[in-house]
Amino acid sequence: MLNFTHRIPTEIRFGKDVTDGLPKVLERFGKNILLVYGGGSVKRSGLYDRLVSLLTGADFTVTDCPGVEPNPTVASVRRGVDLCRAKGIDAVLAVGGGSVIDCGKAIATGRYWEGDLWEMVLQSRAGRKSLPVIAVLTLSATGSEFDNKGVITNPETKEKYSSVFSFPVVSFCDPTFTFTVPPYQTACGSADIMSHAIESYFSRTEDSEISDGLAETIIRTVIHDLPIVLEQPDNYEARANLMWASTLACSGMADYGKRYPGKTCHAIGHELSAWYGVTHGESLAILQPRWMRLILKKDPSVTPRFARFARNVWGMTGDDEADLARRGIEALADFLANIGIASTLGELGIGEEHFLDMAVHADLRGRCTNSYVPLTQEDVLELFRACL
Amino acid sequence: MLNFTHRIPTEIRFGKDVTDGLPKVLERFGKNILLVYGGGSVKRSGLYDRLVSLLTGADFTVTDCPGVEPNPTVASVRRGVDLCRAKGIDAVLAVGGGSVIDCGKAIATGRYWEGDLWEMVLQSRAGRKSLPVIAVLTLSATGSEFDNKGVITNPETKEKYSSVFSFPVVSFCDPTFTFTVPPYQTACGSADIMSHAIESYFSRTEDSEISDGLAETIIRTVIHDLPIVLEQPDNYEARANLMWASTLACSGMADYGKRYPGKTCHAIGHELSAWYGVTHGESLAILQPRWMRLILKKDPSVTPRFARFARNVWGMTGDDEADLARRGIEALADFLANIGIASTLGELGIGEEHFLDMAVHADLRGRCTNSYVPLTQEDVLELFRACL
Repeated sequence: MLNFTHRIPTEIRFGKDVTDGLPKVLERFGKNILLVYGGGSVKRSGLYDRLVSLLTGADFTVTDCPGVEPNPTVASVRRGVDLCRAKGIDAVLAVGGGSVIDCGKAIATGRYWEGDLWEMVLQSRAGRKSLPVIAVLTLSATGSEFDNKGVITNPETKEKYSSVFSFPVVSFCDPTFTFTVPPYQTACGSADIMSHAIESYFSRTEDSEISDGLAETIIRTVIHDLPIVLEQPDNYEARANLMWASTLACSGMADYGKRYPGKTCHAIGHELSAWYGVTHGESLAILQPRWMRLILKKDPSVTPRFARFARNVWGMTGDDEADLARRGIEALADFLANIGIASTLGELGIGEEHFLDMAVHADLRGRCTNSYVPLTQEDVLELFRACL
Repeated sequence: MLNFTHRIPTEIRFGKDVTDGLPKVLERFGKNILLVYGGGSVKRSGLYDRLVSLLTGADFTVTDCPGVEPNPTVASVRRGVDLCRAKGIDAVLAVGGGSVIDCGKAIATGRYWEGDLWEMVLQSRAGRKSLPVIAVLTLSATGSEFDNKGVITNPETKEKYSSVFSFPVVSFCDPTFTFTVPPYQTACGSADIMSHAIESYFSRTEDSEISDGLAETIIRTVIHDLPIVLEQPDNYEARANLMWASTLACSGMADYGKRYPGKTCHAIGHELSAWYGVTHGESLAILQPRWMRLILKKDPSVTPRFARFARNVWGMTGDDEADLARRGIEALADFLANIGIASTLGELGIGEEHFLDMAVHADLRGRCTNSYVPLTQEDVLELFRACL
């Protein structure tokens, strides 16, 4: 078990109607609120009106900052920062999924940043001065509500960078706000949750029982609750379990004590998003089982961990470890093939023309060569081809 | 799944040699440190000398506050508060197990309390002004390193009360500091960890998958690692797993979403400590399996939860739920009977003379009648007799 630091000061208010407590939380910081959100979904669902009426009824001045993109750009950050300065904003209220919360964090830190904002993104650093960020979560996926990171894109330089800003002071997580998330986004978000837990789980450090148990629990939760939610979008219990799973899955808690295992599928999946605009969770759903088959073939010494995955996640039994390992992977592949999103790149009209560039770029930070089972460029190419 | 709030601002630094970072943390608050500790064990182990030399070498002024009792008294709190005022203390450094950290929290809040300190204990309230508390953990048991509570005793009024003070700012958890904990204290601490998880697990709210998975993980961790530690006191991996299990078991995280299930065995166990001085963990080890047998007999509707306990904690299989339920309980009883502590009250020389008073007092806050399976006074008496 390796040394670790747990430091997540964010308060989570979880459950039905928790946003009733929003005015009292914002009151701590002042009356001028920047409301950061994305497209029309928070307006269609009625959430926008509900929150604005709650805040104006409590004498807050709400400044709108709409239009945050699914991959938030530095231009959106700049727009928010300008509003913060012009309007004397006291706190940033981010209402949405991971992209909106990420952008809200960057705006809050950008408020005090002198100079170029893309430079701020690149100079990732904890403890920078920031306006307080309060989050209202509407999508179970990235875990941004419980960490201090934000992924910001610079379309001019074609760069996308995960930077450290500040933790939300309070995140309001009301599962009913996810009732209106369509099946496709729900499934992609769940594949993301599952992938965070899986990428923590497959590590060479075998003795962190709590981290492994947490990862297994998160994966089992998605297996149990995603099919329920796809049938019954307003099933509160299932939505609630997915939401709390998403918050913990990306908190780092399932990594504690373990050698950082590279998050290889995330690195490779980002290439599919960058080159073809594949939705993050969908890219992970396509890659993850093929990655598992590839590394098990390449390095049979990982068989016991895969057998454990089969037993503890899928409830499989048997004495043949190699057979268990294979069956666990195929169970995951079957599951992901039946949640209403693509399970091959072919379905998305993607061919192999850019695979070499993508394989080179995926390893720029060593997340393929320096991973659970180290992957060569040839391995990554084989993985891409297996996804066709 | 019920609404919940997660609010644990404490930073945990976990692993070997993490206390090397202690001066830098204390530096934030000032140079005058009150060092709160218990008996001779931190001196015998060399930890006292190590920390004092680390701090004096970094120009801190360390004021000793030794002699905190296993059940810390309001007199110890008063002694610490007087020292804080007399010496202009900037931060409280509590080095020990739960009792020492509890007392350190009470001292830190007491520093700013005007009036009687027992009144402060009784007026439990979050958000009171407090000196910063930094903890160095030496015993895996109570979880005080990761919560804001402290149990303080008033010998004059024969009262023992759990009060809310403040969270440690940082808790340093180095598993090597538990290598010298004797087998008896190690086993009692582990029984306490297990009981925290079990009392979270047995609840009428059946749909909090993450909380249940966390509780199962914690219990399995104790089952796996306590026997290793009893054989090999310096086994780092096993000590580390027990330590992180203890921190999370009492954090409330295994309760999230669940109806507060009363912590019945803790309430009844406190009576054994109050009347006969039975060590907290030992009282729980004696009570827990008998409580399980009693409630399963009294209310067979809880059978499925016990069958789940047998499957997910003990890895048992079978289709007969009632049989599984019974086997899971007996597995726990066998485990607890073989960790080197008493498994009956008879072994401790305790007879039934005070059972009636104890049964009445155990339910003063409704923790028997208002519990997972409500217990009448007659039930509690039956439970005590089953422990003889």
